[in-house]
Amino acid sequence: MSDSEKGDWQNTTIDSAQAKKNPETALAVKKITSLRQSIDNVDTAIVSLLAERFKYTSQVGVLKARAGFAPADYQREDHQITRLRRIAIEAGLDPEIAEMYREFVVTEAKRRHRRIADAGGDPGVLDVFA
Amino acid sequence: MSDSEKGDWQNTTIDSAQAKKNPETALAVKKITSLRQSIDNVDTAIVSLLAERFKYTSQVGVLKARAGFAPADYQREDHQITRLRRIAIEAGLDPEIAEMYREFVVTEAKRRHRRIADAGGDPGVLDVFA
Repeated sequence: MSDSEKGDWQNTTIDSAQAKKNPETALAVKKITSLRQSIDNVDTAIVSLLAERFKYTSQVGVLKARAGFAPADYQREDHQITRLRRIAIEAGLDPEIAEMYREFVVTEAKRRHRRIADAGGDPGVLDVFA
Repeated sequence: MSDSEKGDWQNTTIDSAQAKKNPETALAVKKITSLRQSIDNVDTAIVSLLAERFKYTSQVGVLKARAGFAPADYQREDHQITRLRRIAIEAGLDPEIAEMYREFVVTEAKRRHRRIADAGGDPGVLDVFA
């Protein structure tokens, strides 16, 4: 079997060679392609919202550093945990995933707050990606 | 100093006792409160979109399992890495954060795809949070 006949099974689930031989597989591939476009659209929206979120948290970081507040805020975090858990359940999302999301953004925001505080309230330390 | 006079400095950056004594701190607290409301609004939107994203990836998981495709798809992942990096830069987000987001959702989606495959294409294994 030549390389071109092997199909792309090893690298992708969208195996064009396999799909040609089996109409049921071809249908599954078509549906997966459409769903992936929707997933890409959701990702575009989420990445754009994350950009806005980090602009807001950067501003919070500057205000905290200038007022002498600590980067971490456990009372705020408790509020966020409870709130996001409730929103996740209402939206039909496993609350464990919402908690993983929260941990990811809060950890990253705190790390950036510390850098702003260490630079004496200068958000410039985060360069263009404040 | 009594407990009530100590302020809530240890637990929160919104230290009401400290803010009362200093108008500049009070202004910072006011601005942080407003920014936090915007952050909460962004989180509501993102968690709702994550709920939709996992509904889509669950459908992909069922289609993959029934067609006998592997849960992982490295060609697709390469496409997503390049695409999200570009969108992040355009949106003013550190592309490192977009990549952390991608790793988080893709890892979780693959873990769920494996569970669907192990259950013979039955999304019911994910209970109500498919």
